[in-house]
Amino acid sequence: MPPTISPRPRVVIVGCGFGGLEAARALYDAQVEITVVERTNHHLFQPLLYQVATAGLSAPAIAAPARHLFRKQANVTTLLGQVTRIDVQARQVLLEDGMSIGYDHLIVAAGATHSYFGRNEWAPFAPGLKTLDDAFEIRRRILLAFEQAEKEADPAARDAWLTFTVIGGGPTGVEMAGTLAEIAHYTLPGEFRRIDPASAKVLLIEGSSRVLQAMPQDLSQRAHEQLTKLGVEVRLDSRVTAIDAAGLEVMQTDSASGSGDSYRIASRCVIWAAGVAASPLGAQLAQATGAKVDRAGRVQVEPDLSVPGHPEISVVGDLAAAQSYLAGHEPRAVPGVSPGAKQMGRAAAANILRRLAGQPTLPFRYRDYGNLATIGRNAAVVDLVSPLGHFKFSGYFAWLFWLFAHIYFLIGFRNRIVVLLDWGGAYWSKQRYARVVTDIGAPPRKPGA
Amino acid sequence: MPPTISPRPRVVIVGCGFGGLEAARALYDAQVEITVVERTNHHLFQPLLYQVATAGLSAPAIAAPARHLFRKQANVTTLLGQVTRIDVQARQVLLEDGMSIGYDHLIVAAGATHSYFGRNEWAPFAPGLKTLDDAFEIRRRILLAFEQAEKEADPAARDAWLTFTVIGGGPTGVEMAGTLAEIAHYTLPGEFRRIDPASAKVLLIEGSSRVLQAMPQDLSQRAHEQLTKLGVEVRLDSRVTAIDAAGLEVMQTDSASGSGDSYRIASRCVIWAAGVAASPLGAQLAQATGAKVDRAGRVQVEPDLSVPGHPEISVVGDLAAAQSYLAGHEPRAVPGVSPGAKQMGRAAAANILRRLAGQPTLPFRYRDYGNLATIGRNAAVVDLVSPLGHFKFSGYFAWLFWLFAHIYFLIGFRNRIVVLLDWGGAYWSKQRYARVVTDIGAPPRKPGA
Repeated sequence: MPPTISPRPRVVIVGCGFGGLEAARALYDAQVEITVVERTNHHLFQPLLYQVATAGLSAPAIAAPARHLFRKQANVTTLLGQVTRIDVQARQVLLEDGMSIGYDHLIVAAGATHSYFGRNEWAPFAPGLKTLDDAFEIRRRILLAFEQAEKEADPAARDAWLTFTVIGGGPTGVEMAGTLAEIAHYTLPGEFRRIDPASAKVLLIEGSSRVLQAMPQDLSQRAHEQLTKLGVEVRLDSRVTAIDAAGLEVMQTDSASGSGDSYRIASRCVIWAAGVAASPLGAQLAQATGAKVDRAGRVQVEPDLSVPGHPEISVVGDLAAAQSYLAGHEPRAVPGVSPGAKQMGRAAAANILRRLAGQPTLPFRYRDYGNLATIGRNAAVVDLVSPLGHFKFSGYFAWLFWLFAHIYFLIGFRNRIVVLLDWGGAYWSKQRYARVVTDIGAPPRKPGA
Repeated sequence: MPPTISPRPRVVIVGCGFGGLEAARALYDAQVEITVVERTNHHLFQPLLYQVATAGLSAPAIAAPARHLFRKQANVTTLLGQVTRIDVQARQVLLEDGMSIGYDHLIVAAGATHSYFGRNEWAPFAPGLKTLDDAFEIRRRILLAFEQAEKEADPAARDAWLTFTVIGGGPTGVEMAGTLAEIAHYTLPGEFRRIDPASAKVLLIEGSSRVLQAMPQDLSQRAHEQLTKLGVEVRLDSRVTAIDAAGLEVMQTDSASGSGDSYRIASRCVIWAAGVAASPLGAQLAQATGAKVDRAGRVQVEPDLSVPGHPEISVVGDLAAAQSYLAGHEPRAVPGVSPGAKQMGRAAAANILRRLAGQPTLPFRYRDYGNLATIGRNAAVVDLVSPLGHFKFSGYFAWLFWLFAHIYFLIGFRNRIVVLLDWGGAYWSKQRYARVVTDIGAPPRKPGA
């Protein structure tokens, strides 16, 4: 590019999830040069990733090329690359391939991956769900488990293939377990000749005393009932103590007596939905700046989302341990949900504009619209915070609400139509569109890699 | 299963491509027990595979689970497995995992893969296109080449990333080259800030003196013109003599003087569309039965598609070197196209029914409906054989004809709608729906594996 007469400030955004994408979009008309560095070539609509893992949607239905989303935003350059380090002294972002990108303002939105709480040896046996590759791996394991069961002559071995275990009763675990039950009871029956797919067992293992901890108690109870109705066996107060290729070990605590009871589950398809860890970039940034990280590796940021002592660096989304500030109230932690990431991205961008205009930055305020989780066919729970008041509902109407909220927020007009069609068809036919497995016989990928 | 009083004849079908699928369907009402053994979990609509490779369609749009296609056909059991050997004495099919399946009648429809004419060391540098995994690998290479070019500062290195070479001017090569030119000229411009995607070069290397050898001379000429108009550089009489990670070497023969001229092309994305080799199961079967295989490894079958000396074994589709018989005419070779495979599948099934009824089998007759190939946006050639006569046409109308013929034959109602929408949208917007790459940074797969 020819040198410009007065160079515009360089804004670098690391990551193109909800936080990074919203930050870049909020600078649409700004007189800045933005570089978005993204590890994958697509923005992923993560709330529907479980649908790709359970063969309900194809990958392109929930992923759009980052550079395509920015095609009309002339001040954005998109680069594919893995950021390995931030050099806060030289104000440079360093990529794996040796490239370095200088910045005047930096927004770090590198997100999170799943965490095995120090038990990384479990990873090959219980893949987590954060990327499209993870989703393909889980899809492969689910569909091939039924295929193996159809070929298996030994009843005990067959049962192990037909036992699906989901670890973690948060939103992802609940979605996965509910959808697995749906597949076993609605999608596959009639297609097998030697097994009855409806005889498959779906277990949901949760360490605490209820599913969906972030929800009010009564909605947790509703979700639990809906899971049970769909055929999921929910096991509360249960901690996983071992996982291997043949199954797992679980320690169940009696909440009254406090005594524990350990037992084994023979299960060939185990899915990890229990823990989240921030991108390692958080720890590197903290080390370089003296900032603190919390137990999940998230960077503790200032009220305006900047890193202490570095107003030119902001951290947003799942990588930030941020607080919400509202005059007259105690600060409260921002939850790790997509509206939080989007609002942080916009706030960090706005603060860059304020700094460029010589104005003081503003503390972040999280606007809570509530919480919603889907469970499966016609089943969801909604905890809605609106100007008209606080609404809690569950069941069919909650499921419709969840459906339209997700389709509304899905990036890109074409994708929305495709998703609606896929779902409309799937709902009426009880079929699933994307039951395609590739790389059969390939060595299992290291999940989370 | 409980033992039945009079066991029904066991028909085993190896492979669920066009040949295997049609064979099983032709036995819909037959009093037989059919087992379909399939290496992947899906039937693949191979004529549109290049669309998956070029990010125009998602994989599920052209692939349907084999067992789903047979769900209402109660006499079919579908098993996922790789057949390694046929024991013609014991009348058993042996799978990789040790399973064996006995048969009374066997239809082998294991298909073909790509061949590097003894130069398998070229495989990592020039993937071919036969499976969904191949398509993902090619999609990844095409899209990442543009990403690398955007990051590359050195002009020569950038040009090598922006030079795409397709080897082989048959239908697949022509489709790939035309669509690559479309991507460079219509899809990507406007999305990059440092390169102009339209400056990408697309080369089509063909060893003979014209593209689409199976077509009449004038349609080859039309196809050549349409490719050139789309921006493809067609190089005829050109043989590849070496391929490596940085590019390839080509020997161009002057057709008048017969003298050769060798030169090098710096090209980081090379696609192999030159050779086809039958499944190794053909050679094993030939060895076990004394049948002959042709140069491409296809089994030379009897007029009724059976293996010489083994009326209980038929070979159909790309694995068969078959002849078409019509009274009063010389037998002629059946071309390796999907209508050929489908017709062979139906004929082999019909001959099983005739044998079960104590009737003599019938020689195979191929009904030729002509030939069609697409080149790219609004461009195709059609050579139609119909009861009303022989029609040859090209251009926009040929493209529409090609489009509707393919959508009509695509398996499954839902898929057709999705494909129509994806294409409708892509046509108007000039965009491509499935520009998603996964497994970035993974070691390149061994193509064709």
